[in-house]
Amino acid sequence: MLNTLIVGASGYAGVELVTYLNRHPHINITGVAVSAQSPDAGKLLSDLHPQLKGVVDLRLQPLTDVAVLAKDVDVVFLATAHEVSHDLAPQFLAEGCVVFDLSGAWRVKDASFYTRYYGFTHQYPELLEKAVYGLAEWQSESLRNADLIAVPGCYPTASQLALRPLLEAGLLNTEQWPVINATSGVSGAGRKASLTTSFCEVSLQPYGLFTHRHQPEIAAHLGTEVIFTPHLGNFPRGILATITGRLNPGVTAEDVAKAFHDAYDDKPLVRLYDSGVPALKSVVGLPFCDIGFAVQGEHVIVVSAEDNLLKGASSQAVQCMNIRFGYPETLSLI
Amino acid sequence: MLNTLIVGASGYAGVELVTYLNRHPHINITGVAVSAQSPDAGKLLSDLHPQLKGVVDLRLQPLTDVAVLAKDVDVVFLATAHEVSHDLAPQFLAEGCVVFDLSGAWRVKDASFYTRYYGFTHQYPELLEKAVYGLAEWQSESLRNADLIAVPGCYPTASQLALRPLLEAGLLNTEQWPVINATSGVSGAGRKASLTTSFCEVSLQPYGLFTHRHQPEIAAHLGTEVIFTPHLGNFPRGILATITGRLNPGVTAEDVAKAFHDAYDDKPLVRLYDSGVPALKSVVGLPFCDIGFAVQGEHVIVVSAEDNLLKGASSQAVQCMNIRFGYPETLSLI
Amino acid sequence: MLNTLIVGASGYAGVELVTYLNRHPHINITGVAVSAQSPDAGKLLSDLHPQLKGVVDLRLQPLTDVAVLAKDVDVVFLATAHEVSHDLAPQFLAEGCVVFDLSGAWRVKDASFYTRYYGFTHQYPELLEKAVYGLAEWQSESLRNADLIAVPGCYPTASQLALRPLLEAGLLNTEQWPVINATSGVSGAGRKASLTTSFCEVSLQPYGLFTHRHQPEIAAHLGTEVIFTPHLGNFPRGILATITGRLNPGVTAEDVAKAFHDAYDDKPLVRLYDSGVPALKSVVGLPFCDIGFAVQGEHVIVVSAEDNLLKGASSQAVQCMNIRFGYPETLSLI
Amino acid sequence: MLNTLIVGASGYAGVELVTYLNRHPHINITGVAVSAQSPDAGKLLSDLHPQLKGVVDLRLQPLTDVAVLAKDVDVVFLATAHEVSHDLAPQFLAEGCVVFDLSGAWRVKDASFYTRYYGFTHQYPELLEKAVYGLAEWQSESLRNADLIAVPGCYPTASQLALRPLLEAGLLNTEQWPVINATSGVSGAGRKASLTTSFCEVSLQPYGLFTHRHQPEIAAHLGTEVIFTPHLGNFPRGILATITGRLNPGVTAEDVAKAFHDAYDDKPLVRLYDSGVPALKSVVGLPFCDIGFAVQGEHVIVVSAEDNLLKGASSQAVQCMNIRFGYPETLSLI
Repeated sequence: MLNTLIVGASGYAGVELVTYLNRHPHINITGVAVSAQSPDAGKLLSDLHPQLKGVVDLRLQPLTDVAVLAKDVDVVFLATAHEVSHDLAPQFLAEGCVVFDLSGAWRVKDASFYTRYYGFTHQYPELLEKAVYGLAEWQSESLRNADLIAVPGCYPTASQLALRPLLEAGLLNTEQWPVINATSGVSGAGRKASLTTSFCEVSLQPYGLFTHRHQPEIAAHLGTEVIFTPHLGNFPRGILATITGRLNPGVTAEDVAKAFHDAYDDKPLVRLYDSGVPALKSVVGLPFCDIGFAVQGEHVIVVSAEDNLLKGASSQAVQCMNIRFGYPETLSLI
Repeated sequence: MLNTLIVGASGYAGVELVTYLNRHPHINITGVAVSAQSPDAGKLLSDLHPQLKGVVDLRLQPLTDVAVLAKDVDVVFLATAHEVSHDLAPQFLAEGCVVFDLSGAWRVKDASFYTRYYGFTHQYPELLEKAVYGLAEWQSESLRNADLIAVPGCYPTASQLALRPLLEAGLLNTEQWPVINATSGVSGAGRKASLTTSFCEVSLQPYGLFTHRHQPEIAAHLGTEVIFTPHLGNFPRGILATITGRLNPGVTAEDVAKAFHDAYDDKPLVRLYDSGVPALKSVVGLPFCDIGFAVQGEHVIVVSAEDNLLKGASSQAVQCMNIRFGYPETLSLI
Repeated sequence: MLNTLIVGASGYAGVELVTYLNRHPHINITGVAVSAQSPDAGKLLSDLHPQLKGVVDLRLQPLTDVAVLAKDVDVVFLATAHEVSHDLAPQFLAEGCVVFDLSGAWRVKDASFYTRYYGFTHQYPELLEKAVYGLAEWQSESLRNADLIAVPGCYPTASQLALRPLLEAGLLNTEQWPVINATSGVSGAGRKASLTTSFCEVSLQPYGLFTHRHQPEIAAHLGTEVIFTPHLGNFPRGILATITGRLNPGVTAEDVAKAFHDAYDDKPLVRLYDSGVPALKSVVGLPFCDIGFAVQGEHVIVVSAEDNLLKGASSQAVQCMNIRFGYPETLSLI
Repeated sequence: MLNTLIVGASGYAGVELVTYLNRHPHINITGVAVSAQSPDAGKLLSDLHPQLKGVVDLRLQPLTDVAVLAKDVDVVFLATAHEVSHDLAPQFLAEGCVVFDLSGAWRVKDASFYTRYYGFTHQYPELLEKAVYGLAEWQSESLRNADLIAVPGCYPTASQLALRPLLEAGLLNTEQWPVINATSGVSGAGRKASLTTSFCEVSLQPYGLFTHRHQPEIAAHLGTEVIFTPHLGNFPRGILATITGRLNPGVTAEDVAKAFHDAYDDKPLVRLYDSGVPALKSVVGLPFCDIGFAVQGEHVIVVSAEDNLLKGASSQAVQCMNIRFGYPETLSLI
């Protein structure tokens, strides 16, 4: 049994983490915590999220002393703000914990990226080097020895799972940048009071044109430029990405299909569609990323769908943990 | 032409007021204002509510000096918080304006009601006496000479329009209190950042059981006790009330139908259903209150539906203004 | 291991049944079937409901010969139309199966009820006598020996779980009929093409005033009259019932609380709220019925919420099966 | 006053047409009609669409004899199926009516287009030549003398209004095909019973990848190839298109802005955003197409939004009529 602490447990991703870990046969949840300043500290998690009543009735501890909280803890999940994760991860590592971080704080090797896109100076460039990017289907090997796992978020997971097979197989003409249009549910903005995400204000709308920080993250990990346009959708959960790319001359639909099957036929949490494309409802509440595609002439369209809080956050974190500790990849997930 | 000022124009009800008044042939909008502290002051209303772009491009003035803003103004609409309306209405009346107030500040004659249910001490009991309750279909006469009109809100309008014909006709056995179950769209909570009304938190739920302040307001104006249970619905606009009551012995379905037709056949903004009951979608965006009913044995169910921002707020305010100034009741409304 | 057949597996309740049973440690699904005329016959269940891809990839068999399908089958779940269940249940019983039926065909003892409210003549009055009504929390004993279990639907489950503790404790003044206002998600209408349930037509609306057949079912099982008004809500899943009743003189809030705790403290799938009332989102996707209540003077309001497809259909069927076969009541459910 | 007949008045676009025309000061509605086979024939339009009660209480006539219905009629609007419009338009033209058709039957000059994409053989190639494509902002001149106006639908209107200014100004590098990703509300599928558009089935999903017939229509009218991927969105009304294109070398953001302002500054029903991009809610219920854009390096993203039933259908038809008959372009629209 792994003693496990979840920090930031009262957010939407945190609740999903707690739910998965609570039913995991090798996990013992030793605590759920929030920042000491949070109004949620001291409350029952199930009072904030009544769906957990009778399932998980843990009380949120204030995160005051890392050393105390980390005592006898093997694994820590951080579902915290970028800056908070940046500060906490090294402390938990120092206590000997394996850290799964759901923020952006450890996702890109180049420290200057954080100055430019996150507005803070990263203090741990050497740790950035050691962090493993937890795009689970593509990092199985490096995950097995990782101590700090940077779990990618919803947009980058949906985008990279869709594009990477084509790039690995050399099928894409990257001179013409792939166009990623993705629509995310409102829970992607987190659990907080905000006029932008208030019920009467939400309405389908693109945002962050050419300027969203997930664009350079995706480009860095794929090794090619992309045009990424996120949209806020009028639904609570899920993300759907429609990606249009140019194929190299002579590439056929069969080549494309083969690339996807080579990449994912042995990956239980990516589901390929032999015909048609996924709809959002097919993945909401589930730990899968579903992928469909179509080819016409030199163009390819790939559609990927996932639950932004699950494969785009919490279930992928648990999937990484399963790989890290040698459990079956889908344990407690399906 | 009536020179008109709208205070609190940036809220959801305010925007609807501006839209109606902007197309009213006898209205000249002289200004739209918000409190001097509001972050909206100085902004274009159409920047906050882009649906108004090219339709109403007025700038929100800070409400600093009532005397200055009220100069040459004939009519003022207050779509402001209860306490703000309580303070502003007397000032605008002193400047000779006719005031239509959409808050709760002037709706009940008994000043102690405000101490108990609104948490402030009402300073103007004599003005409370003079204020006319703008339930338009039932106050046509008194509205004609009113200078301060307290426009009722969404729940009380839907509830009273449904019950009053039965009470006036003496059909209800009020020993058994009518049970009002009403569900309102989220816009009823106003335009503000709040976790309660954030997109991912909203979900059908009753609130304020036995304790909502609209219960005593409804009871006071109807002259009979009621059980009123409001619900938050997962839609932006509209209100639907399902009301169950006990009829006096011998009362028939025909008696009930006659009571409604007597009350509303000459009222263009109440629509009666001869069969079936209204659905929410039939009134959203429209200034009507739709009413249907069914009788079985000694029980009656009345269903009323309206747009909470329109017949439950702004269109009823304009309807009252039309009556007050002798214009056709539906002018600019349909 | 119980060999299990699910008939009507392609509907919304059927899919939930399959999902629960697929992960049940003592269940072996031997087949999923639909009527021989269904266009779904022969298709993969996961092609109709892609959320099941990679989880349950069974093919829907046409229900041609009950004897063949029932061979070596211990348990049958019928998620079929009322008339179909009426015809099938006796055939499966004759083959020695234990039958859990989710339709209305076996819920009321009095055969004339079916003539009046379901429009068909019930052919098996003696079997109606033997059928056990699967309101799980109240039938634990009789379920243990039942061979035909009539699982109650969403409205009756939510209504009876809310009212029965008060009635058993003798707290309600039933001279004044309890008023049940309930709102159900659209999935309650089943999976089929219909203008009424098409996306653009759905909108909050009451229906079946005084005439819905769940009213006499509830009244028959509670042993007291009720006024039941169902509403269609603009959400896919869930049901919320707000119930207003009159208490006997002298009954206190403590008496009410005690009645609920006496009834449900040892029932893991009913969750009581010590303060506040449930929201729909707290139960959607979960097998619970959540109950909250408030008392003022001689009136009580009880609010119950459940997922109409789960506690109002499929999870309650599995719960009944767990009780029937002596498994832990919540096995595979939470 | 123009005597006006609306055929197909019971559909979603038909209802909007009737609403606009009912309040148009120069229009006299002489009839609303549906096909003789329609179950709606003989019914009150306001019984099918209760929002019209007390506003438009016309009865739907069966379309039996065109000559009779067209007698003394000046203007006909056809909100009918493609094949029906194909058959009806010539008959109404023969009666001397000016015809505004909202179907696809007259939108493309090349008759073979209909064989390929619509599945029927077009019988009137010479009439196709004369039909004027009613993309109102770009056809003002030719509309003035047109007798048969083919009003474009929602996707082509949103796409062309966004791209045409760039093409006219020669700013786009069309070697790299513009990528149009558009999401439409469910009402775009029409008012009918269908499992696909039933409430519980709708969920964000792309469809018709590389094969939707609006792709060749857009390409034909723009004179350049495009990649067009439509999506079904989980909302009743509205369409939002996000369009990504490659600019010619040296083209600047200022060039792009100038092209849009040159095209639309004198067009009251296209609203340009100087900063930001439109959200769906800003256009739903309104006759505008809103357009925003962003440039980075050699790439441009244009976002256009409109109500699919209004600027994408009915209000554009009325706009075309206003232009055709010399009325102010926005008369009865705003």
